[in-house]
Amino acid sequence: MIIDCHGHYTTAPGELQAFRDAQIAAFNGRGATPDVNKLAISDDQIRESLEKAQLKLQRERGTDLTIFSPRASAMAHHVGDEAVSLAWTRVCNDLINRVVNLYPDNFVGVCQLPQSPGVSPTNSAVELERCVKEFGFIGCNLNPDPSGGHWTSPPLTDRHWYPFYEKMVELDVPAMVHVSSSCNANFHATGAHYINADTTAFMQFIQSDLFKDFPTLRFIIPHGGGAVPYHWGRYRGLAQDMKRPPLAESVMKNVFFDTCVYHQPGIDLLTRVIPVENILFGSEMVGAVRGIDPTTGFNYDDTKRYIDALAIPAEAKQAIFEGNVRRIFPRLDARLKQRAA
Amino acid sequence: MIIDCHGHYTTAPGELQAFRDAQIAAFNGRGATPDVNKLAISDDQIRESLEKAQLKLQRERGTDLTIFSPRASAMAHHVGDEAVSLAWTRVCNDLINRVVNLYPDNFVGVCQLPQSPGVSPTNSAVELERCVKEFGFIGCNLNPDPSGGHWTSPPLTDRHWYPFYEKMVELDVPAMVHVSSSCNANFHATGAHYINADTTAFMQFIQSDLFKDFPTLRFIIPHGGGAVPYHWGRYRGLAQDMKRPPLAESVMKNVFFDTCVYHQPGIDLLTRVIPVENILFGSEMVGAVRGIDPTTGFNYDDTKRYIDALAIPAEAKQAIFEGNVRRIFPRLDARLKQRAA
Repeated sequence: MIIDCHGHYTTAPGELQAFRDAQIAAFNGRGATPDVNKLAISDDQIRESLEKAQLKLQRERGTDLTIFSPRASAMAHHVGDEAVSLAWTRVCNDLINRVVNLYPDNFVGVCQLPQSPGVSPTNSAVELERCVKEFGFIGCNLNPDPSGGHWTSPPLTDRHWYPFYEKMVELDVPAMVHVSSSCNANFHATGAHYINADTTAFMQFIQSDLFKDFPTLRFIIPHGGGAVPYHWGRYRGLAQDMKRPPLAESVMKNVFFDTCVYHQPGIDLLTRVIPVENILFGSEMVGAVRGIDPTTGFNYDDTKRYIDALAIPAEAKQAIFEGNVRRIFPRLDARLKQRAA
Repeated sequence: MIIDCHGHYTTAPGELQAFRDAQIAAFNGRGATPDVNKLAISDDQIRESLEKAQLKLQRERGTDLTIFSPRASAMAHHVGDEAVSLAWTRVCNDLINRVVNLYPDNFVGVCQLPQSPGVSPTNSAVELERCVKEFGFIGCNLNPDPSGGHWTSPPLTDRHWYPFYEKMVELDVPAMVHVSSSCNANFHATGAHYINADTTAFMQFIQSDLFKDFPTLRFIIPHGGGAVPYHWGRYRGLAQDMKRPPLAESVMKNVFFDTCVYHQPGIDLLTRVIPVENILFGSEMVGAVRGIDPTTGFNYDDTKRYIDALAIPAEAKQAIFEGNVRRIFPRLDARLKQRAA
């Protein structure tokens, strides 16, 4: 079985964005707040939005199940306020739940959180619990920078985040560390802000004792861990200079990287320096990069091909494609076992 | 000849930091502004600070010449104001000039700039000209984020920077894109802020027509180009999705990466995906990571070993160690030719 740990609903019907536009306009004093109950998206619309995109690509590429969450760039926690973020988040998560109910064999849900700059993540704990307990979601996307490129929140290792981590531990769900769009002109979203956030989060984890406080807390750092595997010597050396424990002890029991690295040399490096048990298959499709690589003739984000091409044992590939994902997402593992029984 | 394009004076005598401390204290209303003319550092102190560190390592590792600039983390453009930044910058550059005069075969100068948040870089053009014309410096370190981790300046491709670029072009000197310390708790300086800035700058260059406006402008992105080579497929794909020209045309005639990547797999990747002509030897020693890698028994930042170990033609190594550096720094090339004649 091949499980893609990183997919977003980037192809949602236009009505979703129309709702969002109206919501933002209302926040800015133009028009009435849109009524969630009047957001009319039919099951057929959802099917159509997926059949031509994610489901088609699953079939073409030979992947089975995608861990699916709302479009990351559209979370935009910096837009509006806490109430706007909560309403938008619930709409997005509800829609993911409909996707999962329509295609339970193809998708499993991960939720967006109602974060807002300066707001305690306790409200996010409430939404996480709703999605896990009511919908059967198996994880969440946690934004380390709800300000959208101004980085005004405390580091992920600050006690600010602890109430949320307590809920993650209680529910036994991991978080993918995932920023949203950038409102800082310096940072292109998918070309800089995403990758920077990945790198930043990893270094924060090195600096702290977070995983002593939460030994079972688990984070997936997407986009192949940002710059980290390429600079693995730097991170090992920094930890050493700072008299921190080796990364294997202090961080790598709790932190995992996906395979959203869009060329063979990158995946080769990732699997050369990062232990297999810390790597989860992911593609981010349909997502950040949609074109075909002229040097291969295949989509940049067809990351399964890069794993297939690796000269590593079959068991290692199996761990990346399935075993590790099921271990990090125990609620998924339980569901799959139940289904098989 | 082996030229290290990336070295900082991280071992300067303590008097320099004492001056800086007094300067900051005075800015904050505690004590008098220190007198530059009373900053007493002897030639012997300078010799001692280098003989046991950079010069010893040059000899041990077999490198010849280091392109040398003030300590990057100490630039701290976010501290004080424009006048403080200018006074501090001049002191630091003057000291580099003394180093170069004491050891003209071992060091060549690159200057710090008197940047300050919100201040036009025209003042930096004045200091660049002073250092190039009076001292014979061959380049500069340009900080894309003088705010120290808040990223309040416009992107490097904004016309805000054009007056400075005009001076760079006039003097025919490149800039290394190099941030300083971070005053944002999210960003560890050498583990996150530096790498993020490298990644950010490259993506800014992809998005713009800067090099159409300045066809001879040249930037070195240090630390192996941040996350860029590891995500080379992503950057090629993003440029393609954005209908930008291929990177070889739009960016790679003007942008170069150093080899400050502290493990063999990283250097292997760098040289596998980035054209040889875009790679300059650099070590950042004595700098970000000072320890010995237990997996090799050698210093993490002994990057010459990684290049030596590459299975690439001798001419390619020669280009990385010398040829490319002389091409990108024409004032260095002219000096070396003059010296040889």
